[in-house]
Amino acid sequence: MIRFESDYTQGATPEIINRLVETNLEMTPGYGVDHYCTSAANKIKAEIDMPSADVHFIVGGTQTNLLFISSALRPHQGVMCAHTGHINAHETGAIEATGHKVIAIDSADGTITAKQVKAMLDAHYADETHEHIVQPAMVYVSYPTENGTLYSKAQLTELSLLCREYDIPLYLDGARLGYGLMSEKCDLTLSDIAKLCDAFYIGGTKVGALFGESLVITNDKYKKDFRYMEKQRGAMLAKGRLLGLQFDTLFTDGLYYKISEHAAILATKIRKAFEDKGIELYYDSPTNQQFPCLTDEQMAKLGEEFAYCYWCKSGDKHVVRFCTSWATKEEDVDKLIEAIERL
Amino acid sequence: MIRFESDYTQGATPEIINRLVETNLEMTPGYGVDHYCTSAANKIKAEIDMPSADVHFIVGGTQTNLLFISSALRPHQGVMCAHTGHINAHETGAIEATGHKVIAIDSADGTITAKQVKAMLDAHYADETHEHIVQPAMVYVSYPTENGTLYSKAQLTELSLLCREYDIPLYLDGARLGYGLMSEKCDLTLSDIAKLCDAFYIGGTKVGALFGESLVITNDKYKKDFRYMEKQRGAMLAKGRLLGLQFDTLFTDGLYYKISEHAAILATKIRKAFEDKGIELYYDSPTNQQFPCLTDEQMAKLGEEFAYCYWCKSGDKHVVRFCTSWATKEEDVDKLIEAIERL
Amino acid sequence: MIRFESDYTQGATPEIINRLVETNLEMTPGYGVDHYCTSAANKIKAEIDMPSADVHFIVGGTQTNLLFISSALRPHQGVMCAHTGHINAHETGAIEATGHKVIAIDSADGTITAKQVKAMLDAHYADETHEHIVQPAMVYVSYPTENGTLYSKAQLTELSLLCREYDIPLYLDGARLGYGLMSEKCDLTLSDIAKLCDAFYIGGTKVGALFGESLVITNDKYKKDFRYMEKQRGAMLAKGRLLGLQFDTLFTDGLYYKISEHAAILATKIRKAFEDKGIELYYDSPTNQQFPCLTDEQMAKLGEEFAYCYWCKSGDKHVVRFCTSWATKEEDVDKLIEAIERL
Amino acid sequence: MIRFESDYTQGATPEIINRLVETNLEMTPGYGVDHYCTSAANKIKAEIDMPSADVHFIVGGTQTNLLFISSALRPHQGVMCAHTGHINAHETGAIEATGHKVIAIDSADGTITAKQVKAMLDAHYADETHEHIVQPAMVYVSYPTENGTLYSKAQLTELSLLCREYDIPLYLDGARLGYGLMSEKCDLTLSDIAKLCDAFYIGGTKVGALFGESLVITNDKYKKDFRYMEKQRGAMLAKGRLLGLQFDTLFTDGLYYKISEHAAILATKIRKAFEDKGIELYYDSPTNQQFPCLTDEQMAKLGEEFAYCYWCKSGDKHVVRFCTSWATKEEDVDKLIEAIERL
Repeated sequence: MIRFESDYTQGATPEIINRLVETNLEMTPGYGVDHYCTSAANKIKAEIDMPSADVHFIVGGTQTNLLFISSALRPHQGVMCAHTGHINAHETGAIEATGHKVIAIDSADGTITAKQVKAMLDAHYADETHEHIVQPAMVYVSYPTENGTLYSKAQLTELSLLCREYDIPLYLDGARLGYGLMSEKCDLTLSDIAKLCDAFYIGGTKVGALFGESLVITNDKYKKDFRYMEKQRGAMLAKGRLLGLQFDTLFTDGLYYKISEHAAILATKIRKAFEDKGIELYYDSPTNQQFPCLTDEQMAKLGEEFAYCYWCKSGDKHVVRFCTSWATKEEDVDKLIEAIERL
Repeated sequence: MIRFESDYTQGATPEIINRLVETNLEMTPGYGVDHYCTSAANKIKAEIDMPSADVHFIVGGTQTNLLFISSALRPHQGVMCAHTGHINAHETGAIEATGHKVIAIDSADGTITAKQVKAMLDAHYADETHEHIVQPAMVYVSYPTENGTLYSKAQLTELSLLCREYDIPLYLDGARLGYGLMSEKCDLTLSDIAKLCDAFYIGGTKVGALFGESLVITNDKYKKDFRYMEKQRGAMLAKGRLLGLQFDTLFTDGLYYKISEHAAILATKIRKAFEDKGIELYYDSPTNQQFPCLTDEQMAKLGEEFAYCYWCKSGDKHVVRFCTSWATKEEDVDKLIEAIERL
Repeated sequence: MIRFESDYTQGATPEIINRLVETNLEMTPGYGVDHYCTSAANKIKAEIDMPSADVHFIVGGTQTNLLFISSALRPHQGVMCAHTGHINAHETGAIEATGHKVIAIDSADGTITAKQVKAMLDAHYADETHEHIVQPAMVYVSYPTENGTLYSKAQLTELSLLCREYDIPLYLDGARLGYGLMSEKCDLTLSDIAKLCDAFYIGGTKVGALFGESLVITNDKYKKDFRYMEKQRGAMLAKGRLLGLQFDTLFTDGLYYKISEHAAILATKIRKAFEDKGIELYYDSPTNQQFPCLTDEQMAKLGEEFAYCYWCKSGDKHVVRFCTSWATKEEDVDKLIEAIERL
Repeated sequence: MIRFESDYTQGATPEIINRLVETNLEMTPGYGVDHYCTSAANKIKAEIDMPSADVHFIVGGTQTNLLFISSALRPHQGVMCAHTGHINAHETGAIEATGHKVIAIDSADGTITAKQVKAMLDAHYADETHEHIVQPAMVYVSYPTENGTLYSKAQLTELSLLCREYDIPLYLDGARLGYGLMSEKCDLTLSDIAKLCDAFYIGGTKVGALFGESLVITNDKYKKDFRYMEKQRGAMLAKGRLLGLQFDTLFTDGLYYKISEHAAILATKIRKAFEDKGIELYYDSPTNQQFPCLTDEQMAKLGEEFAYCYWCKSGDKHVVRFCTSWATKEEDVDKLIEAIERL
């Protein structure tokens, strides 16, 4: 069985594993104040050309989301996001567990528009009973989205300007950030994202690390006392250097980009194979997740050799997800393509 | 200006005011363990023919909702309700502030069906990633709904059977319960509601009391230690007798029903006046709230003499709300009807 | 049985009752934006000579405490108070239920000193692991304290200066504020309290009202969006005018002070009776609560005619509490004094 | 500089590192349902001879504590522990952030007694206002405690019987469990702990793993839906196998015990060196943490070559902490002992 069902089925890039081995018995202080964390943070700050940014290393994405959101909001405030947003759909109410409503906005492809957000904000303040309604006070976007789609630079800029006009933070969940940045359709750089967002995270778990996400807070307003929050939510790793070392490696010699590009190229090949076969793709995803609409028979046939993830029904077809990752082997993709051709 | 914008613009029935005056200097123990509370609880238990029920008196509806819901759910669980449900739309995230997601179900008229709830439950457990999703674990309905509509006995029975099948509580928000029960379309009694629901509250604030709601917990499973919850959320009134005395009065000689019927009859008259004039009613409400769809001109004209509540746009019309209450004067309704006729 | 066990056994002052009766059928908008609330707020702002203050009317003390504290703190912060403080000892964890630790400071008489608070703050920041510890970020005091004791103006000023130095709010719980202000030992005015504290509440429930507390926020930093909080915690009374009307009455012609003074004078008489009899008073309370240390026999003897509240053991004696209130009759106090003399 | 300041300064045992390297590119399902987690859970269940236990693997201790405690308590309940307990003192209010009060019990050495707990429970229920007080509803103990001390089997049995009598869970934080179990003073086995506690965790972070704790829930009552909680709090590691693999390794061929014993033996040597030198040990710790009371001069002298952790003042002495771990080298301990002898 060749597995394409997700992008977190394997360990870490060999560069990371090697450094873990080499540094294993080194003694460092705990809780993220070691020299690996400092070095990794400096590399990220250099990469985004923003020395004043705060960089925190956190084990997982749900934790990163709930930490930033609960730290930045006051009790009566909620966070707007696409109804498909990970915080709304797939984190077991992690945000609500910190006391805040997730305010879902309808989305066909996983993105939301500045127009939708503005309409929601304006409707809130226009309603004379707005004190009886959760105050929309943050925008959460994913890049790429849960459906593999991307915001253009123009779209993200519009959202950013809107958020600044209303004085609310724009937060970007980059669980698969590398796969977005290295997509042929991407017109944003990491530095653009840093300038447009008040906070965002660079995903490691799905992009070459054993685990770990790097939260970057760019707006001073949201920086204060953040490490207290980390400890309180159980998100301050004792051996914090494990996170620092991984991000230090990923941001050395462009490794993060290289491994992301690998996955993006292979995904494009898979996408093309489906298209050539006349198989519709449910979302127009230019990133490492591809969502073909298969018949029962096609699904069964591919399932004999390949693991994929079931997504949803669409008419009499089934939408499934195939993921590539930093670790996907080209030969496995070739086998998949042959199988698609044989369908 | 004659005011129809809501059903909580005035004080309490004279019977309640009189008893407040009479008992003012009586000394009683605090926090709801006085003889008025006991007497009121006994009358309600007799009314629903359920001596084992627990009855708690709470100042307001939002508090009652958040108390019962947060007491009955575990951290990973959420409460299902119509997207228009008060807890979802108009309580500033009170439920989320206790850590729980409100799971909205689309509704055209404020009601939800057993079929919708079953679909949501089944979809949850069928999804193999359900541990990543908030567990739907309670059903919240309002009776009447926020749109003035009612569940039939058959509909509520279906919901009740479904909830029992899935072992989750059915909770009914009765902020305007009297106006529902005394509607000519109602085929439920208070006792039916008690039998079908695991908990519900009898609204006082909008039905004759100065303030106060009476929460009735019928299922033993949700009774334990509830008074601790009340105190913790700041919902245990020091002079609890004020609540007991009001409900004792309302449930003496059928006062609650009598005053509710008064409002229901007047609302029916208003409804008929709109219908006779060919003015569409946005919701098919047989209770004390009526929602005519008015033109700009009609709205302006009625606004000269009468206060109403703006609801929403509907095409090029405006939906507004007219409420009657226990205190509405027949002569004021007659003036409104004349004004409608003149439109 | 003559009851001295608490100061909330009876209804409201006749002035309040009369106005409730008179205004019962008046129609006003809901949720505290009516003219009674405006008038009451203006009277309080005039009384403290601070037109910029925000005044909110809330049904009860626990709610007021949890509202202000949870609104002002960020997630990692806690509130310091005497270990006997109401929020620590007698509100079923209401503050913790909003996510915040109550940081108890030892106290012999219910007060805490600026020195103790400073020591706690300095110890926190001196500890290099302080991010692993709840950040002390507010001071809560009660005036009078739960033990009937008072802060002097010098003591409260010291606390206030300290809090301003550390940029944390000083919040004063005035559940029995009138009885403190009218004590012969009091050297503070309401206006002093407003100037020294960032927020405080004027208790109505125990001082002449049926229910209700008036929260005064004096520091701009803590004012924003407070009404959202009220709604979210179920603390926004639908018929808000009931609160406004009561405080308007209490702050007309000095009624609040007059009725408080009545209780203070009677408490002093009771205190003197115990002292004359050689019965020790457990706390040095100059306010409406008195705490004599009684033998088994004395306790039984007084218990035949008078209700009191059991407090704690002290050696082989029992500490009990006798309260006076705005409603206490002089003749009842005289009977108690005779009984004390007969012991 | 030779570092003794904590037991989490280094990576993992070579056995773990080797297996991470070997399995790095293996593909497994995510979120802890892989074969490594299954195998590790089975080994732990075999070790405690309790096939019905639920075993969950969680990244860190704070997270494990907040997960179990918030999952098992209802909103009005709190958890009792020594005032020095990690959840009370050193987790930034993690438990309060989930809504629950930590009820501190005074402790001289980090342990609490059944007698103390019983007194607290009895006082609660004897107080007629107990609904106004947080209900004590769980006992948290650490083994070893934060001070390195241990419960005897008799003491833990007493606590266990008491908890069962009052139907509340006994939860044991085993962050350093191995170092406790392998202490020469220990008279408990892992299996004893499993039988006496309703839940406990086996610490990996400080005992040979890169990170990770293994929560064992033995009482059926607390098992349901626990994985939802994990996801909600951001505690479900995507590549869950990293945790499974580590615990599988630790519980193969008694590795967990062997490496713990190593640390225990070295700690005993250090302890003896201090004793021989006439230096008092602040706590009577038979485990891997030792707390000598040093003069300024001694502290400075040892500080030239060795890193330790500052604990507290004691009279004119300073209490500091020296930790050994699975990774401590005997030669480093010998150098420390020589330095102690030279003091």
